[in-house]
Amino acid sequence: MTEKIVIALDAMGGDAAPDMVVGGAALARRKLSHVHFLLFGDSARLKALLAKHPVLADCVEIRHTDQVVKGDDKPSTALRGARESSMRKAIDAVKEGDAAAAVSAGNTGALMAMSKFVLKTIKGIDRPAIITAVPTATGSCCILDLGANVQCSAENLVQFAVMGEVFARTVLSVEKPTIGLINIGIEEIKGNEAVKEAAGILRETTLPIEFAGFIEGNDISAGTVDVAVTDGFTGNVALKVAEGTAKLISGFLRESFRSSWRARMGYLLARPALALMRTRVDPRSYNGAIMCGLNGIVVKSHGNTDAFGFSNAIAVAVDMATHGFIEKMREDFERLRADYPANDPEPVS
Amino acid sequence: MTEKIVIALDAMGGDAAPDMVVGGAALARRKLSHVHFLLFGDSARLKALLAKHPVLADCVEIRHTDQVVKGDDKPSTALRGARESSMRKAIDAVKEGDAAAAVSAGNTGALMAMSKFVLKTIKGIDRPAIITAVPTATGSCCILDLGANVQCSAENLVQFAVMGEVFARTVLSVEKPTIGLINIGIEEIKGNEAVKEAAGILRETTLPIEFAGFIEGNDISAGTVDVAVTDGFTGNVALKVAEGTAKLISGFLRESFRSSWRARMGYLLARPALALMRTRVDPRSYNGAIMCGLNGIVVKSHGNTDAFGFSNAIAVAVDMATHGFIEKMREDFERLRADYPANDPEPVS
Repeated sequence: MTEKIVIALDAMGGDAAPDMVVGGAALARRKLSHVHFLLFGDSARLKALLAKHPVLADCVEIRHTDQVVKGDDKPSTALRGARESSMRKAIDAVKEGDAAAAVSAGNTGALMAMSKFVLKTIKGIDRPAIITAVPTATGSCCILDLGANVQCSAENLVQFAVMGEVFARTVLSVEKPTIGLINIGIEEIKGNEAVKEAAGILRETTLPIEFAGFIEGNDISAGTVDVAVTDGFTGNVALKVAEGTAKLISGFLRESFRSSWRARMGYLLARPALALMRTRVDPRSYNGAIMCGLNGIVVKSHGNTDAFGFSNAIAVAVDMATHGFIEKMREDFERLRADYPANDPEPVS
Repeated sequence: MTEKIVIALDAMGGDAAPDMVVGGAALARRKLSHVHFLLFGDSARLKALLAKHPVLADCVEIRHTDQVVKGDDKPSTALRGARESSMRKAIDAVKEGDAAAAVSAGNTGALMAMSKFVLKTIKGIDRPAIITAVPTATGSCCILDLGANVQCSAENLVQFAVMGEVFARTVLSVEKPTIGLINIGIEEIKGNEAVKEAAGILRETTLPIEFAGFIEGNDISAGTVDVAVTDGFTGNVALKVAEGTAKLISGFLRESFRSSWRARMGYLLARPALALMRTRVDPRSYNGAIMCGLNGIVVKSHGNTDAFGFSNAIAVAVDMATHGFIEKMREDFERLRADYPANDPEPVS
């Protein structure tokens, strides 16, 4: 029997919370029978919702909270003023060892600020980053940072590369993940100072990292590398452009299939095959970005997801806890610090 | 009768040059009977190619050049060392008034460096930018900068906004184009210093610009605004991510239609409707990025395009020349300078 695992849920975060959160927990529990939940939020509403999901009867503990972090709260305001919120309490539960991971669909900036404050970064990591996996022609690619750091130094990017490597290896089970640094050309002379310097460090490193050099925006979906590293501004825009483009093409496709009787008939015949494709690019299937680099697992779900999407974010949290992600990350950064005492970019042989 | 218009072509630039360039000229000429060409490149090869395209017999003048700018030449090397190249000579022809515009599918960095050196920026514009239009749910959106400037100040971004506005108004015939500034969230507190400061200037400006505030990556394809402004690093990555995502989904779609006999049959029925969609997202249909902000029109074609794609880049050049793009740009920056004497970000009332 698999050992019981407890996940803390911010039941009040997200556009369709708390219904979507409880629904997501129920879906996740059906697939993962060893998962238990700590549900932080309005206990009266949560009790009413739980009554609709008998599958959750024996695996949920409600912990009442009154305070809610709003979508437009500033991170600093949330950090100071929302210490009794469902979001903060879910993170506290990870810190206190009550839960193996926390999942929230709430305000990203607030979640990052609180997670960083409560859990602290792993020794050797200056700044945490947000990471997720996206579909590619050959499988999936992890991208980081997705918005935690609008400006990044070469050192930050190098640390992101190591974090991404551990993520791809432990969570996605890629044996020797390849790492690419996003740039506006693959030539060494291209790009800003931070990416050029980071590439220099990664090329010289004695760490067992498969650095593939610079990649361009289209390399992400082509599956050129397992991990794509960039600053939080570029990464955030890139992810949203990809989502927007996928949505645009789906819309064009729908219009095409409706444009004539012949096309409608064609759609009916191809429907089962197309359903498969839809699953492959469904953003809900890739829901769950990780606040990476902290002493604890915090997963951010898309704010406007539904129960199915939220259940996938829970699955990501369970996966990370099961695979000992934090421990492996600590080991790798221990080694990185041994290789680079005093943050020296020159390798010590 | 429409007045004759002369376009200078760098016949040696691009993966499939010079065949693709001559083929593109022939396709363009079939649609635009008033277009004439100055063809810069290897005259022996060009003469042989022209023999295959009788439509070009009376509208092409070959100007022989020996030198070719290579794809991996550094911009500075090309600028100093390739003064007799087909690329440089095509730009020189615009400067000297022999051609209304130049089109090249060669090395982007070299093309920008040479164009800037030869044509100089319009008074009031510190740095030129690369701009193009991409398909959206409601029509098209212009994005700039696409890679000319890896780091941008708030002033640069404000100038890009004005350049984009003129482009959308004159070339895309949008009466009152709306301008969005790409950011990682639409709240005022988000983003790096340059975008926050640029947004402040654009909100206060007395220029007749419809500033829509911050937009996110997915707003581009959603068609939220007519012009999306960003730095060259982010813009380049965003454009390539969009292209990569479109390619990925096309691939998934192709696989789906091949996955069963039923799906194949469905494809055959829907094919005419799908062909229409393919045209809407075909990058060749959107080929032609403009080196914007200079005293002359230079259009960059995708390096790996074919004759059809190149003919579209020529059409963009003709459009811009016909609509008096440069003159309108000069007028707007004249007005900007009157509004902001000494580059004062505070509006003078």
